[in-house]
Amino acid sequence: MFNFANFYQLIAQDQRLQPWLNVLPQQLTDWQNDSHGDFERWLRSLNKLPTFTPDQVELKTEVTIKNQTPLATGEQKKLENLLKTFHPWRKGPYHIHGIHIDTEWRSDWKWERVLSHISSLKNRNVLDVGCGNGYHMWRMLGEGARLCIGVDPSHLFLIQFEAIRRLMGNDQRAHLLPLGIEALPKLEAFDTVFSMGVLYHRRSPLDHLLQLKDQLVAGGELILETLVIAGDESAVLVPTERYAQMRNVYFFPSALALKVWLEKCGFIDVVIADENETSTAEQRTTTWMTHNSLPDYLDPADPKKTIEGYPAPRRAILIARKP
Amino acid sequence: MFNFANFYQLIAQDQRLQPWLNVLPQQLTDWQNDSHGDFERWLRSLNKLPTFTPDQVELKTEVTIKNQTPLATGEQKKLENLLKTFHPWRKGPYHIHGIHIDTEWRSDWKWERVLSHISSLKNRNVLDVGCGNGYHMWRMLGEGARLCIGVDPSHLFLIQFEAIRRLMGNDQRAHLLPLGIEALPKLEAFDTVFSMGVLYHRRSPLDHLLQLKDQLVAGGELILETLVIAGDESAVLVPTERYAQMRNVYFFPSALALKVWLEKCGFIDVVIADENETSTAEQRTTTWMTHNSLPDYLDPADPKKTIEGYPAPRRAILIARKP
Amino acid sequence: MFNFANFYQLIAQDQRLQPWLNVLPQQLTDWQNDSHGDFERWLRSLNKLPTFTPDQVELKTEVTIKNQTPLATGEQKKLENLLKTFHPWRKGPYHIHGIHIDTEWRSDWKWERVLSHISSLKNRNVLDVGCGNGYHMWRMLGEGARLCIGVDPSHLFLIQFEAIRRLMGNDQRAHLLPLGIEALPKLEAFDTVFSMGVLYHRRSPLDHLLQLKDQLVAGGELILETLVIAGDESAVLVPTERYAQMRNVYFFPSALALKVWLEKCGFIDVVIADENETSTAEQRTTTWMTHNSLPDYLDPADPKKTIEGYPAPRRAILIARKP
Amino acid sequence: MFNFANFYQLIAQDQRLQPWLNVLPQQLTDWQNDSHGDFERWLRSLNKLPTFTPDQVELKTEVTIKNQTPLATGEQKKLENLLKTFHPWRKGPYHIHGIHIDTEWRSDWKWERVLSHISSLKNRNVLDVGCGNGYHMWRMLGEGARLCIGVDPSHLFLIQFEAIRRLMGNDQRAHLLPLGIEALPKLEAFDTVFSMGVLYHRRSPLDHLLQLKDQLVAGGELILETLVIAGDESAVLVPTERYAQMRNVYFFPSALALKVWLEKCGFIDVVIADENETSTAEQRTTTWMTHNSLPDYLDPADPKKTIEGYPAPRRAILIARKP
Repeated sequence: MFNFANFYQLIAQDQRLQPWLNVLPQQLTDWQNDSHGDFERWLRSLNKLPTFTPDQVELKTEVTIKNQTPLATGEQKKLENLLKTFHPWRKGPYHIHGIHIDTEWRSDWKWERVLSHISSLKNRNVLDVGCGNGYHMWRMLGEGARLCIGVDPSHLFLIQFEAIRRLMGNDQRAHLLPLGIEALPKLEAFDTVFSMGVLYHRRSPLDHLLQLKDQLVAGGELILETLVIAGDESAVLVPTERYAQMRNVYFFPSALALKVWLEKCGFIDVVIADENETSTAEQRTTTWMTHNSLPDYLDPADPKKTIEGYPAPRRAILIARKP
Repeated sequence: MFNFANFYQLIAQDQRLQPWLNVLPQQLTDWQNDSHGDFERWLRSLNKLPTFTPDQVELKTEVTIKNQTPLATGEQKKLENLLKTFHPWRKGPYHIHGIHIDTEWRSDWKWERVLSHISSLKNRNVLDVGCGNGYHMWRMLGEGARLCIGVDPSHLFLIQFEAIRRLMGNDQRAHLLPLGIEALPKLEAFDTVFSMGVLYHRRSPLDHLLQLKDQLVAGGELILETLVIAGDESAVLVPTERYAQMRNVYFFPSALALKVWLEKCGFIDVVIADENETSTAEQRTTTWMTHNSLPDYLDPADPKKTIEGYPAPRRAILIARKP
Repeated sequence: MFNFANFYQLIAQDQRLQPWLNVLPQQLTDWQNDSHGDFERWLRSLNKLPTFTPDQVELKTEVTIKNQTPLATGEQKKLENLLKTFHPWRKGPYHIHGIHIDTEWRSDWKWERVLSHISSLKNRNVLDVGCGNGYHMWRMLGEGARLCIGVDPSHLFLIQFEAIRRLMGNDQRAHLLPLGIEALPKLEAFDTVFSMGVLYHRRSPLDHLLQLKDQLVAGGELILETLVIAGDESAVLVPTERYAQMRNVYFFPSALALKVWLEKCGFIDVVIADENETSTAEQRTTTWMTHNSLPDYLDPADPKKTIEGYPAPRRAILIARKP
Repeated sequence: MFNFANFYQLIAQDQRLQPWLNVLPQQLTDWQNDSHGDFERWLRSLNKLPTFTPDQVELKTEVTIKNQTPLATGEQKKLENLLKTFHPWRKGPYHIHGIHIDTEWRSDWKWERVLSHISSLKNRNVLDVGCGNGYHMWRMLGEGARLCIGVDPSHLFLIQFEAIRRLMGNDQRAHLLPLGIEALPKLEAFDTVFSMGVLYHRRSPLDHLLQLKDQLVAGGELILETLVIAGDESAVLVPTERYAQMRNVYFFPSALALKVWLEKCGFIDVVIADENETSTAEQRTTTWMTHNSLPDYLDPADPKKTIEGYPAPRRAILIARKP
């Protein structure tokens, strides 16, 4: 049993978030009743993690926790072993008491590409849709966000997030809810909403954009990152089956097409902030994620193509505003 | 708009009450959307009440609030006028900064009859079903209860309760929810449950007893007070239309019959603690409740009978335990 | 799978019954998904019954089916064996091609007590709540009813009813729905409603009376039969645990008390038509119901009492009208 | 009040359609409660139409009704006036007792383009999603379909359809339900499903394709017609605001892209049967549809473009099979 009491207290006292209580507790109770055996095992590991508040927490330039007196070797080894039970680690990296969690993704690189283009997060309420294990939420706090709420339905991501939070001294400024975006009511409560790496997994991309808009306050900012293709306003790839071995993939518009979609959904001031081909240095197998990764999904003969013959991964970041 | 944020925070952090969040916020949102014009007017009066914490609060022997330096005459008059906008006051009496709210009912007399028979309320979580304006909840706090939650669907009772709470310095140990008992999920969270003056208003008395049982922890205590008739285990009056001018009345069992009903519903250690005929000194018209009252509902020729010819009001208190 | 297609067609074309389609098909689908293994086995036996229309059907004086040329001994034996797979048979008796289904109850005796008091059923739409295997519905058709709909949640009763209907040549004037009365929407569609042997099984008798009223057209007639006790308007027995070994029993009012309850629920012209002590000749073990029966449930030393010490079964029939 | 009793009877007795009863009656009751004043007015006109069965009905080459003895001029004029109260007539043409309902669309031309490519409709159950006033359903019956069910949420289309049906002598082989496709449960009951002129109105085109698939039996055939653009597999236009003055428009894929989408949704044997630019002879203002039409929505300077500058309407017909 994972308890969301702190989160309920938090939203009870925030006028804009309080309406969430009308649906969230029942959704999370249903989720609890659905949870599987792995989750209970992970929870037991989680409860073995140390609870002290670290002497030093760095969130602005990287995610690093340490004490002035480093952990004894035995303690460190024990901690590392516990964290390894939460394999695979996809989003990071984290530096925890001298342990370098070298994740599949260099999520810090993506953050770097995003950061220069967005409005300051200072004192903002932020929603991170598809937040993974929450890496970017820590970086958002590093930028001064008041509160970060992430949603991601994966049980393992929740555990990894809670592990890091525990090691942060039980920080209450970030919360992860094991839900999909479609479970959220229209809250209109967030100053900034991030959706990174989600849109190409949605069967209905326009509904996704409208759901994101429903979460923003008037004037709020959306940061949308997704896989795109090269091309003009009418270029949209829909892979027949898999893309880079992923099955649940749907629409890959060009950045220009995506700009039109955002405008169609009523966003304004839409800007294509960045376009970038994902390198095999940014996403790859590591000791903390030992399964296949991007290098295995590209055509060995032509790294510009996936093994299915589609253009290799290319990502765009668009920034837009709700009027 | 009346905000239940404090109550949501309270139940979020109580493991036994937290499941209530699965239904309560939506119920109260529906209730808000249903609220009528009077309620908004009363809320405005409520917000004019002074917010200071009184120097002296007496709850054990009576409900009295006062300051060492009494209110100036103008202040007191202003306060009295505000409180009078919440007419009619049925349950009390209250002594508020020298103002004697002389209510229709001497609810303190009922409390006296109850108190000697019940288990100590010290540190207990208490539910008061049909709590009226909450008078007995203050007395329960006077007996050391940790938390008192009352349910009563009347808008005016909520306002009167909140007025008193505000004048108590916004005490958070008592809460009133504008709901009927049938809206509560099976909480099994209360050490003591009171149902006083409710059962004869229920079309299905056995379902009422089972709903009360659903709220108790194992071993918890029920205090049941209701209108009864004289008679043996098979004596049950059902008035065809009105009883003492009340319309929504159903079953008036004898105390002995009620004992059987409690046992049928699985209660144990059932005791008939008190039986008492309601006097016209206990329930009557006052300056704070200017409508008709008990004296008008009795047969002028025979005060042993109601004007409909039924036996005059007689009340029993039964104590029972959930196994 | 039991198919209710004929019933759906029937109510689709009846303006008063059509609203039932808003809830009934989903309820019966849920019921299908809940059905147990026995039911599938019984259905297979049901499908082995002969389908020919009998030469002679008597419903007015008893329920008898026969052919001018009687069944051959082998055929008759085969039919008897099939019908015995639906043991225990509680309501009857039935006379089927020379087979005498000697049921636990002489339901014909009850019918005799009822019949002289009720309005003619000629061309009426009738609802029989708690209809058992439907015995009385056949007798109602014998009195000229246009359509009889029975509700009773027992799977076995449905099978017995369908067996008889099949042997009647698939008569479409009577239908049994495996539901409780509480599943019915407010139809206000029946000219006559019967509730016989149900009220003492209901935890909330007043709600039961109101549900019956909801099914009647204005001016329609209710026939209510239930276990009663001797006594005045305030005499109501509630057995603490069992009554004549039955567990789910609640309120046994006197006939006079029941009259008050009907009036309270808004019925008019309420008449106590009959009161009668159930004899051990009317309810007893037979070769078609081999379990214990009434004789086993009475005090061997005093047949005026049940083995629990309550008054032996006494039944009243009340007739009332919806204004 | 419009009564769907005949339709309920029809689906009650069809094993594959019977599950529809679980949701449809409640949906149509909700729809009734929502109906507006115009609808009641139209119903009154509908009830004034003659009810005789025409001597001659032609459905294979066109939709024509006539009697051997033509209507008297006064009768014909009266009929024409009634039919004109259902203005605007968009889909047709109809030839009714010498009255030529010259509709905005030459829907017969579209039918001609479709017909040569599809499997024979002989004895098939057909669903027509977005059926308009039902013109094509009559043509489908002309091709031997056993049953045609159309869904279209417009009140006026229902009235026009019912008018034609009444003039056909109350033909029960075609039915129109005033619902959107998203209201249908997964029936898997139709041999052929048509969706013509719907997909570009759907915010989620892949969900639309899956909903259509849910209605087909295994091996069933889908006929999909929608607005497309020229281009390769990755060409998809999403108009920012309007297209040819229509507001609720979303995805206009190329025919090749649409083929990929169908395959992605699990359809097989996908064929692009036809591509065709809509001429101003096929869609235009008439005396039976006096509002603006296609000629008003094209760029006066360049009829290859809409007035918004998008490519002028081009339609494709794709045929696909459910495995």
